[in-house]
Amino acid sequence: MKKSLGPNTLAQPAPVWAVGSYDESGKPNAMIAAWGGICGSDPACLTVSVRPSRHTYAGILKHKAFTVSVSSAPLAAEADFLGMASGDKVDKFAVTGLTPVKAEFVDAPYIEEFPLVIECELKETVDLNVHVMFVGEIKDVKCDEDKLADGKYPDPEKVLPLIFSPGTRAYHTVGERIGRGFDLGKKFLKKG
Amino acid sequence: MKKSLGPNTLAQPAPVWAVGSYDESGKPNAMIAAWGGICGSDPACLTVSVRPSRHTYAGILKHKAFTVSVSSAPLAAEADFLGMASGDKVDKFAVTGLTPVKAEFVDAPYIEEFPLVIECELKETVDLNVHVMFVGEIKDVKCDEDKLADGKYPDPEKVLPLIFSPGTRAYHTVGERIGRGFDLGKKFLKKG
Repeated sequence: MKKSLGPNTLAQPAPVWAVGSYDESGKPNAMIAAWGGICGSDPACLTVSVRPSRHTYAGILKHKAFTVSVSSAPLAAEADFLGMASGDKVDKFAVTGLTPVKAEFVDAPYIEEFPLVIECELKETVDLNVHVMFVGEIKDVKCDEDKLADGKYPDPEKVLPLIFSPGTRAYHTVGERIGRGFDLGKKFLKKG
Repeated sequence: MKKSLGPNTLAQPAPVWAVGSYDESGKPNAMIAAWGGICGSDPACLTVSVRPSRHTYAGILKHKAFTVSVSSAPLAAEADFLGMASGDKVDKFAVTGLTPVKAEFVDAPYIEEFPLVIECELKETVDLNVHVMFVGEIKDVKCDEDKLADGKYPDPEKVLPLIFSPGTRAYHTVGERIGRGFDLGKKFLKKG
């Protein structure tokens, strides 16, 4: 029996993406976005949503760029802090010991210690009332070599991306491997 | 050491969302979108990206509505099939045995057997070349009562949402609980 929970943001899974940008004075900053996802394949692009009150907001607009550093389980406390503090008041890199690195292809910093990073050029902004959704065109993906499968794909069991659950506010990471896409469903093909 | 992987869609985690819609003739259909995410809090909204060649595309535009049924681990094969076949050629509900249910607030069907469903009214479309990103305003969230935490929040350890890994194409579900958001990071507050 399904229970109605009202018009809420209770979808699953949500990412825990550290959005890196230079602020208006050029200082590196990072905030956590759980509102985001991949949105297109060609060009490769993704969305992150940011409240205009956030310190990150003006920096992304000024530099027309941001990065996504994928939070991983071993750095969950650091990631959570990035979502709690404002870069307007504290230097989150100094406090956490995380290292900002200038991205190769866009004018924004990523976080060295996070295993998987995505460099984005600002492509579009969509006003959604309390959030502005930034669409970023992906200019490069970088992954720690020891976290790759077959030397070319980020391996979720090594990247251990954090997964946020809106509502319960719990962080999990990936668990049991269920199978492969475009493979598990083949058992129904004969019936099609 | 980070390795450059080029401008690809290798972000993590990605959802495995069954996007439900009525087609132009009124027949229920569902496809899988891994390109999507929550995008705003007020109004609550989310994105799913769909190629215009997909059978789902015209249906969403006609009915100005879609649902997201969150795929869960026990129904991984069914979910995968929804992403392999076209509703133009087969009745995916008949083949999988899944049950389409008319949503309460929007003109689209959801999948009864999936534990968590989200009813969306089409709010905006954003052309991203090979994909069109649909922004849906969330009109209701429904969850199986036995999958709730504290009777009000979908519990990820009971919903067991599928998580897709672009690149490896592996499905996982949520694993170890790492901690709570806005809590783990407190250890850095004293340094702030």
